[in-house]
Amino acid sequence: MTAHSAIGAPPLVAHGGRLDAARRLYPNAPQPWIDLSTGVNPRVYPLPPLADEAFTRLPDDDAFAALDSAARKAYGAPAGADVVPGGGAQAFIQMLPRVFPARRVAILDFTYAEHAACWAAMGAQVDTVETLDALAGADVGVIVAPNNPDGRVVEPQDILSVAAQLSQRGLLIVDESFMDFTPERSVARFAHNEGLVVLRSFGKAYGLPGLRLGFALCSRARGAKLRAALGPWAVSGPALAIGARALSDDVWRANAARASAGDAARLDALLTQAGFHIVGGTTLFRLAAHPQAARCFTHFAARGILTRAFAAKSDWLRFGSPPDESAWARLAAALESVDGG
Amino acid sequence: MTAHSAIGAPPLVAHGGRLDAARRLYPNAPQPWIDLSTGVNPRVYPLPPLADEAFTRLPDDDAFAALDSAARKAYGAPAGADVVPGGGAQAFIQMLPRVFPARRVAILDFTYAEHAACWAAMGAQVDTVETLDALAGADVGVIVAPNNPDGRVVEPQDILSVAAQLSQRGLLIVDESFMDFTPERSVARFAHNEGLVVLRSFGKAYGLPGLRLGFALCSRARGAKLRAALGPWAVSGPALAIGARALSDDVWRANAARASAGDAARLDALLTQAGFHIVGGTTLFRLAAHPQAARCFTHFAARGILTRAFAAKSDWLRFGSPPDESAWARLAAALESVDGG
Repeated sequence: MTAHSAIGAPPLVAHGGRLDAARRLYPNAPQPWIDLSTGVNPRVYPLPPLADEAFTRLPDDDAFAALDSAARKAYGAPAGADVVPGGGAQAFIQMLPRVFPARRVAILDFTYAEHAACWAAMGAQVDTVETLDALAGADVGVIVAPNNPDGRVVEPQDILSVAAQLSQRGLLIVDESFMDFTPERSVARFAHNEGLVVLRSFGKAYGLPGLRLGFALCSRARGAKLRAALGPWAVSGPALAIGARALSDDVWRANAARASAGDAARLDALLTQAGFHIVGGTTLFRLAAHPQAARCFTHFAARGILTRAFAAKSDWLRFGSPPDESAWARLAAALESVDGG
Repeated sequence: MTAHSAIGAPPLVAHGGRLDAARRLYPNAPQPWIDLSTGVNPRVYPLPPLADEAFTRLPDDDAFAALDSAARKAYGAPAGADVVPGGGAQAFIQMLPRVFPARRVAILDFTYAEHAACWAAMGAQVDTVETLDALAGADVGVIVAPNNPDGRVVEPQDILSVAAQLSQRGLLIVDESFMDFTPERSVARFAHNEGLVVLRSFGKAYGLPGLRLGFALCSRARGAKLRAALGPWAVSGPALAIGARALSDDVWRANAARASAGDAARLDALLTQAGFHIVGGTTLFRLAAHPQAARCFTHFAARGILTRAFAAKSDWLRFGSPPDESAWARLAAALESVDGG
């Protein structure tokens, strides 16, 4: 039995957040579904009222400038760096292989699969490697930090050291999609470095992935190329307005980081008690191992709880934080009954 | 005196909708500014209430399927065609030269400048031509239909004839960004043809350009390549929800087409009376010639009315429809005083 068939169907391992597919596969599961399959913060940034102009006008320079200013400050980007906004970190993952083509790409594995897929689609030779040293010599290196799904941390000085070991004019892509609550480990402050591109996601930490907003922080020269490829109006009016406001809200972010850490500790305790081994994660998701992970996935799904399985890692499940006490209670009950499932 | 300096500054000729730049250049203009510089419908599709999930969840397959169904019906796309959604028609204009690279590109001029700019940026040899016949033999042809800014119409059978005259495996891009109110002239119903890509804009006719939503209609094979380049979640949750609803609303579209035609006739009468010669346009914008167009632009701007000038066409101004009776009155007054300006 393959990992795919073990957990139901391929759609559920391609990406998290596939509640539509889960509903079809488990039509008798209790409602509402609890989606723990993503690393999206269930504590959503409060949506401000949006001016009609966010919808009825083309986004203008002033709106982009406001977002730029907020993102620069939130991420600690230096004045010499460009902060390029786009339709999500994924939009940049898609675009980087087209704008900065390369032959030999090395990716610190096991990680978010889209990096390898997008480079391979453009004809690059992609090596997935296990150590930082193995990134040396590639034209392009990719590090997801903190890593998805296991939360592996790479210290900023080690990241800079890897960047220096890439081939001449090489590029190190640091995907910081889950860095918001540990800003002290970000390499955004070095993003003016010609050999670095730092990706940031807005939607995950702020709980608003439907907005489609993300950033590439890089040198001005690389930024000009990315902007030329994106063209004008690459971000929607609602994303500009909400993004500018949320990224300026240091108090919300500090509170969200604390709450998220609390959720993670609570989740670890529940998982451990139910026989899972905590592999790692960030405060927005926990990666847990279980000898019968595939059976657990099905056990949870039958109870209307969607977790994240991995085709290549059959003993892993990833859990996001439940959104409310009712969801916590349902997860606790499902975990208590996992042995008899 | 160049066209640029005559009308104030380059930002105002690069694109319409640059109210932010206009405010800085004409700080003493009466408020509020009336933006007639775009072809965006001032009669906005009524924004439905949005479920929080449009923001808080990643767009899922069900949301994409609903948009697909609505767009397919609205545009009259055949079952054999793919209808690829993206972040505005501009997103596809940016992407087509990367996904379907070509050496010799011919563009039916004078038209929206981004087509030539995006192909040239990818190293293509771009010829701007004056006749349909001159498109023959190119690898890629581009026709904007109806044309922006002069409204030139190309009959569907002539478009198909041009497609057949391109080089083998050639591609004809038909930018139908302003086609919504004249669907009988659309070639969307031929979009399954391997040699065609039809672009549609959502924001212009529905008055919601800030949403960033547009489509490429093409063969399934070409659609697969575009989808691979865009990646997952290329459209925001709000755009999916609002787009699916608006594109299904045939009654609104029919009423909007009638209202838009009425506005265009009213605008033509005012402009003609003020000494402008109507060159053409669509019902969403009118192109008018005046021997002192640059002076007129400044005259309007000083009165808080932004029109669209063209660096390469110094006697042209383009006018969108005023959004309300107060704006109509201000435009009428500005037009009455244009001789003495």
